[in-house]
Amino acid sequence: MSRIADSSMYAHLWGTDELRDHFSEAGRLDAWLDILVALADAQAKNGLIPHAAAAQIATHAHTDRLDLDYIAAETRATSHSTLGLIRGLEQVLPPDVSQYVYYGATVQDITDTWAALTMKRMGAVAWRDLRAIEKDLLDMAVRHRSTVMAGRTHGQIGSPITAGFKIATWADEIRRHLHRLREGQTRWLVGQLAGSVGTLAFFGDHGLAVRADYCSLLGLFDPVVSWTTTRDRVVEFSLLMAMIATTLARIGDEIYELQRPEIGEFGEAGSTAAVGSITMPHKRNPEGSEHLVTLGRLIRSHAQTILDGSVQSHERDGRGWKVEWVAFPEICLLTGASLRITRDLVGSLDVDPHAMRRNLDQTRGYWASEAVLATLATSLGKHRAQDALFSALRDGWSAGRDLKETILSQPALAEHLTLEAIEELLDTPPVHAAAEMVDLAVARATTERQDESDEWP
Amino acid sequence: MSRIADSSMYAHLWGTDELRDHFSEAGRLDAWLDILVALADAQAKNGLIPHAAAAQIATHAHTDRLDLDYIAAETRATSHSTLGLIRGLEQVLPPDVSQYVYYGATVQDITDTWAALTMKRMGAVAWRDLRAIEKDLLDMAVRHRSTVMAGRTHGQIGSPITAGFKIATWADEIRRHLHRLREGQTRWLVGQLAGSVGTLAFFGDHGLAVRADYCSLLGLFDPVVSWTTTRDRVVEFSLLMAMIATTLARIGDEIYELQRPEIGEFGEAGSTAAVGSITMPHKRNPEGSEHLVTLGRLIRSHAQTILDGSVQSHERDGRGWKVEWVAFPEICLLTGASLRITRDLVGSLDVDPHAMRRNLDQTRGYWASEAVLATLATSLGKHRAQDALFSALRDGWSAGRDLKETILSQPALAEHLTLEAIEELLDTPPVHAAAEMVDLAVARATTERQDESDEWP
Amino acid sequence: MSRIADSSMYAHLWGTDELRDHFSEAGRLDAWLDILVALADAQAKNGLIPHAAAAQIATHAHTDRLDLDYIAAETRATSHSTLGLIRGLEQVLPPDVSQYVYYGATVQDITDTWAALTMKRMGAVAWRDLRAIEKDLLDMAVRHRSTVMAGRTHGQIGSPITAGFKIATWADEIRRHLHRLREGQTRWLVGQLAGSVGTLAFFGDHGLAVRADYCSLLGLFDPVVSWTTTRDRVVEFSLLMAMIATTLARIGDEIYELQRPEIGEFGEAGSTAAVGSITMPHKRNPEGSEHLVTLGRLIRSHAQTILDGSVQSHERDGRGWKVEWVAFPEICLLTGASLRITRDLVGSLDVDPHAMRRNLDQTRGYWASEAVLATLATSLGKHRAQDALFSALRDGWSAGRDLKETILSQPALAEHLTLEAIEELLDTPPVHAAAEMVDLAVARATTERQDESDEWP
Amino acid sequence: MSRIADSSMYAHLWGTDELRDHFSEAGRLDAWLDILVALADAQAKNGLIPHAAAAQIATHAHTDRLDLDYIAAETRATSHSTLGLIRGLEQVLPPDVSQYVYYGATVQDITDTWAALTMKRMGAVAWRDLRAIEKDLLDMAVRHRSTVMAGRTHGQIGSPITAGFKIATWADEIRRHLHRLREGQTRWLVGQLAGSVGTLAFFGDHGLAVRADYCSLLGLFDPVVSWTTTRDRVVEFSLLMAMIATTLARIGDEIYELQRPEIGEFGEAGSTAAVGSITMPHKRNPEGSEHLVTLGRLIRSHAQTILDGSVQSHERDGRGWKVEWVAFPEICLLTGASLRITRDLVGSLDVDPHAMRRNLDQTRGYWASEAVLATLATSLGKHRAQDALFSALRDGWSAGRDLKETILSQPALAEHLTLEAIEELLDTPPVHAAAEMVDLAVARATTERQDESDEWP
Repeated sequence: MSRIADSSMYAHLWGTDELRDHFSEAGRLDAWLDILVALADAQAKNGLIPHAAAAQIATHAHTDRLDLDYIAAETRATSHSTLGLIRGLEQVLPPDVSQYVYYGATVQDITDTWAALTMKRMGAVAWRDLRAIEKDLLDMAVRHRSTVMAGRTHGQIGSPITAGFKIATWADEIRRHLHRLREGQTRWLVGQLAGSVGTLAFFGDHGLAVRADYCSLLGLFDPVVSWTTTRDRVVEFSLLMAMIATTLARIGDEIYELQRPEIGEFGEAGSTAAVGSITMPHKRNPEGSEHLVTLGRLIRSHAQTILDGSVQSHERDGRGWKVEWVAFPEICLLTGASLRITRDLVGSLDVDPHAMRRNLDQTRGYWASEAVLATLATSLGKHRAQDALFSALRDGWSAGRDLKETILSQPALAEHLTLEAIEELLDTPPVHAAAEMVDLAVARATTERQDESDEWP
Repeated sequence: MSRIADSSMYAHLWGTDELRDHFSEAGRLDAWLDILVALADAQAKNGLIPHAAAAQIATHAHTDRLDLDYIAAETRATSHSTLGLIRGLEQVLPPDVSQYVYYGATVQDITDTWAALTMKRMGAVAWRDLRAIEKDLLDMAVRHRSTVMAGRTHGQIGSPITAGFKIATWADEIRRHLHRLREGQTRWLVGQLAGSVGTLAFFGDHGLAVRADYCSLLGLFDPVVSWTTTRDRVVEFSLLMAMIATTLARIGDEIYELQRPEIGEFGEAGSTAAVGSITMPHKRNPEGSEHLVTLGRLIRSHAQTILDGSVQSHERDGRGWKVEWVAFPEICLLTGASLRITRDLVGSLDVDPHAMRRNLDQTRGYWASEAVLATLATSLGKHRAQDALFSALRDGWSAGRDLKETILSQPALAEHLTLEAIEELLDTPPVHAAAEMVDLAVARATTERQDESDEWP
Repeated sequence: MSRIADSSMYAHLWGTDELRDHFSEAGRLDAWLDILVALADAQAKNGLIPHAAAAQIATHAHTDRLDLDYIAAETRATSHSTLGLIRGLEQVLPPDVSQYVYYGATVQDITDTWAALTMKRMGAVAWRDLRAIEKDLLDMAVRHRSTVMAGRTHGQIGSPITAGFKIATWADEIRRHLHRLREGQTRWLVGQLAGSVGTLAFFGDHGLAVRADYCSLLGLFDPVVSWTTTRDRVVEFSLLMAMIATTLARIGDEIYELQRPEIGEFGEAGSTAAVGSITMPHKRNPEGSEHLVTLGRLIRSHAQTILDGSVQSHERDGRGWKVEWVAFPEICLLTGASLRITRDLVGSLDVDPHAMRRNLDQTRGYWASEAVLATLATSLGKHRAQDALFSALRDGWSAGRDLKETILSQPALAEHLTLEAIEELLDTPPVHAAAEMVDLAVARATTERQDESDEWP
Repeated sequence: MSRIADSSMYAHLWGTDELRDHFSEAGRLDAWLDILVALADAQAKNGLIPHAAAAQIATHAHTDRLDLDYIAAETRATSHSTLGLIRGLEQVLPPDVSQYVYYGATVQDITDTWAALTMKRMGAVAWRDLRAIEKDLLDMAVRHRSTVMAGRTHGQIGSPITAGFKIATWADEIRRHLHRLREGQTRWLVGQLAGSVGTLAFFGDHGLAVRADYCSLLGLFDPVVSWTTTRDRVVEFSLLMAMIATTLARIGDEIYELQRPEIGEFGEAGSTAAVGSITMPHKRNPEGSEHLVTLGRLIRSHAQTILDGSVQSHERDGRGWKVEWVAFPEICLLTGASLRITRDLVGSLDVDPHAMRRNLDQTRGYWASEAVLATLATSLGKHRAQDALFSALRDGWSAGRDLKETILSQPALAEHLTLEAIEELLDTPPVHAAAEMVDLAVARATTERQDESDEWP
């Protein structure tokens, strides 16, 4: 074990138990054997191999019967990706049966079909977790529909928004990912049975029939044309995982920034056992949020590598395809970790309305400048209002005045804004469209959630 | 002009005329002005500005009336992306009207809505060109349904395929891109009217109504929630362009490789005026094919940059958003070039069945080894057949024998394969599943093409 | 003009005047012609062409004599990168001379030699600007050697540092970039004269002699072996530009974050004409800082594309090489912009020691926890001190106590820390090693600066 | 174990034994403990902890004494990267000593110093392997100094080169990598002792002295300024590994392409046990070459992620730094594999001069067109020669004539080229400058090799 992502100390940061099971050597080999069993079944059904052989294969082709050390040694000795496995199977299958396993198949039939099964597994994880995250976000958006906080552009405080509005943009993006997950199913959940160069030549007249049965037995769609160097299926799924992880990274990054002690609007709930800093005991680090950004970087990089590697030549091209061997499982494991961390994070996120209001007010009411401008514009015209307000605010700010004083001290402005109007504005920041957008987003998501299955695909 | 992609000598390689028009300074500003006109219209309709002002804006807001040098100078002086334009409009609008242009809007309202209109334009180009390419590919696939050629894996000649089968995998991938283009419409063709921080604060109670009218006037969907730092729409579209360009790069790369003089199976039709090499007059370079690979690299890189840049903070974040200003137009221009080159390329591609057969035969019939193995496997069993064939072929190859001689010289093999069977096999390479897959792919595409519009969206 | 980076409104953000001159069509062609003149000179010197022809070429080969429209049209018609230029030269050269221009050369001789000249130009710009930036940073580091501010880890306030220490880490990184620039010279400033396939075949016995003279005339090193598909020179330079731009992006990002109004420790000096926000007049956006991050993203992406594209086949391979045509100038232009913005930024950066101290103190003295721990550790032992301090600080924080109260209220702690010691600690945060590191870094840089030239190479 | 790169079947493809030892959990922890021992030593020397404690730490801090399960469990429970290890050490250290381990240090002190030690290890591997590869390449270049083969541009056969010339470009690039490795040492082999925020605050007046001793004990340079968020050291090393792996990928890709059966000029020597294809027994796949391209893709991607992640905030920023935890070991492991495979590959590469000559001749002598042009140019002038030759060659090619017949059939050409001259040209392709470049490259490398150490640094 040389990869830190599998270290006993740190593996939990770079994967989840359920996905590690899927991608472990045993998990992978078991899935490969299931594929070989389905192949034998389909071949028996089409008269290519004896039914009894298929039955024997189904009985014996299980990881726990195999000598993994022998398989590994034979893999290395032959420099062939699956010949070690085949020889390992020969050890456990009856002599007259062993020739019927892996009959006419090629490495990529196994690995691409496994990729499809992996997409099925990973898609289900993503669907489940994204919907759970969405649910928490929708609840939070409703709860904080009208919780006023500073809108920030270019890192600077601007007009107010609501916390619910911010959260609704997260939920909205996740809803679109759910759409994408749903739409791509028929492209991704597709088996591969191609044979050496994609023509199923080994199976004579039975090629397409065997392929159809094989896919059906595995719960996958038939591919119409072999896709050995046509990698858009894996590419698209990988890119979607990268998009999802990037959305989660954006959420994490936002929380990270808003958890700064100088801001303190969001707070990641830490476990009581967690230790932020050994030497600085007062610190409370945004560990989950931070890690979402890290994971997003790695996942995007792997997805890009798979996309780049998809310019493949002829009927098989290891120069790009073998990239997937490493990068595709990595994308799934890391995205799984990202989803799990986000579930934990949004399920227990602290929102501090008091800090939100405090930060807004620390601008001495200047946050309301846009609303004042809008009001003045109706009486003065936009340009006169802008000019008057610009200089008034600049001077007022330098003089240490707050917004109210600034306006009241300038008769040209004060005549268009009553004291009551200013005070009401400052007291009740106008954010109704923000709240209405929360309503729209929540309503749409709620309707769609009712109509869709808890499970994918 | 400092970018080679706009040089008078080389611009044709990095864009198309129709897209250069869209992305030229005048084209961009005209589109921005259309957006401002729609905004004024929507605001007049909702009582925020006078109808007469909206009418005047519609009359005067055109690039040909503006002083672009003044606008550029003001843009630089103010360090603000659109204030130069606003001041330029003040010069041409009646004094009492100029305050009603760009009323309550923010830069990103203009640029994001323009991004949506750009996606509409670019999506239409991609849809049109991909369908034209698909049509040529389907015709070629049918024409070469049974044209036998070498299948190649890891750069080595393996069992035979057909040229139509290879081409069908290209068409199949393009069909899926058409699906993706169709499915993403409702996510991409969405306007932005957010105001300073996304809450439409300037418009008081009318925010959502103005937004709905504004989007409708521009032929775009309403966004539900502001998406200033929610960039998945632009990201997804960019990634799809990258996927499309990568498919085209794969086609180009395949032609590039198969046009090698030692192979000579495909040939890019050159224009008669084209000069391959000044010093080596006999050469015929695969210029279009080659350039598809180049373009694919650049497009993928830009798409990745946009994806990376989409981890944005708060309500606006130039650190990632401004990346789109450069990278998104670049993706469209380069993808447009890639599509146009591919249209030219596949519309005139030379396919040389004679060279295909010759290359196959230069393996001394060894290409048929898989078919021989399949036949022997039925009588000898797969493993005995493999063992016997392996050593026979290895020895035969070293001895300079062809496949037929090799088999006939080995009684253990020859007894299971008649001379007639071998000769028929060598004469008529068994590729029927390849041809059947062509039929399946063509049938599906043909059906779908009949049901879909020539135009997008 | 379809690239926004050359638009009259925005070009200043994506390049500098001096580099735009270099990369403009005229600038590039003039440099190409200089190369052709040097080639003719070297050939005349070695007896391959008449001296008179070389002299005529030197006289006439200038952009202002050429018909660029004709050259562009011929370039498009021939699909050849330089044949248009050659034909344009035929128009202006005497008939008996025109055959001696571009004699035996190939496109890549011109463009790779131009790349080397571009590296010479860009390296000089980078050297000059990095040294100017370093100077400002060293001055600032000295000035703020002991200006106490919060150290921040994971976005949280920790123990104090000094502003000078932070700035010294920037200067230190820039110094290493200067080392890298110096060391790479002999690898980058190397001419290319290869001929069609790298063997200088056209020049018979004179190949290496012509090449040596040609390189010498252009102020470049001789390459030893042709490097047509050996791209590590351009790759390394591109990656170094990306590293430099990334350092500048880090500086920009730091200023962006520390300019948040809730923090306010750094401030980008805006021009008085600059307008931060039209609708929110109080805002002061960190425009330059922000743009450094944007530029860094684009530059890194282009550099990666060049690296990826350097896996090239045989003796010329447009699939990767043509990537450089677009990406390499872009890297230089954008890095030039990045350097210029950083010069402006660091030359006028506001540093607010008051805000720095205020932010530190808003932790109620908890920033001193590490120093307290260090003191307690000497009497209690580290583990006992940690345990005692952890619970005391946690309880004190919840109870709203400041650090001093917290410690004084716990006899177990208070007996090891006198009131005076606490007050002195809080009053004079212990940052002497930070200040000493400033001294070390400044001393080293100052010594090196004295010994090195203002100009590169 | 969920990463295929560590699977028992496939680990050999994605790492080497020596590097897997370094990066295994035990290997990493042992190195971390060595760092803690050096820290304690340096602290004892400077009076911060008792000498006896340092001695005890040196005695007990070894992986084989630790309870790794306990450490892993505590790591997870505390969510702290090294607190688990610290608690594990408490179990094995005498009670009065345990407080002196990890005294005042922070996670990044350990991991960054480990990164420097890793660069030391990996740099040594790269230096050793690159020099071994270079030696084989130089030998081959000399052996095939004059072995004529086709030069190829854009995939097309052009003028001849020599095999030695091609190989010399590889050796030349590797020599430059050796230069880069040598030059970067002082930047990379640098310890980190920063403490919580980089100021060594815990060590009072002794900070810099402790740091100097600590670095010295570990055989590393002192960093001058803490580099917790100044990542250019790790970035530069990572990018250099990516550049090296890309060079090896270029070599691999070249062999892959030239091993095509239609070309057959290079051949990867396979082990006798290796099985290319189960179903197509005649195939000989270029497995090592192919894998070099795959590895190059992954390594570049990881390096780019580290570069991107180096825009870090303040005094520690896990969002970018934690990327290194996964990506940096991966770069080293994969580059190690790439180097080992290349050593095997170039040490046993088959070069087939006969195939080289055959491919050249299959152009019917047209490969000599440039040489003919050069000759004709001296009598006809370049342009007349080009025009005459262009049409002659085009017509001759269509008519199935070879070069000799083509020229002899055209009196306008034949008068300038004797039959003898043509035959000599065709018989002895003029490649002397190619051979001379081999001599230059070999001479330079040989001289440098004599002066440099076998070991790095």
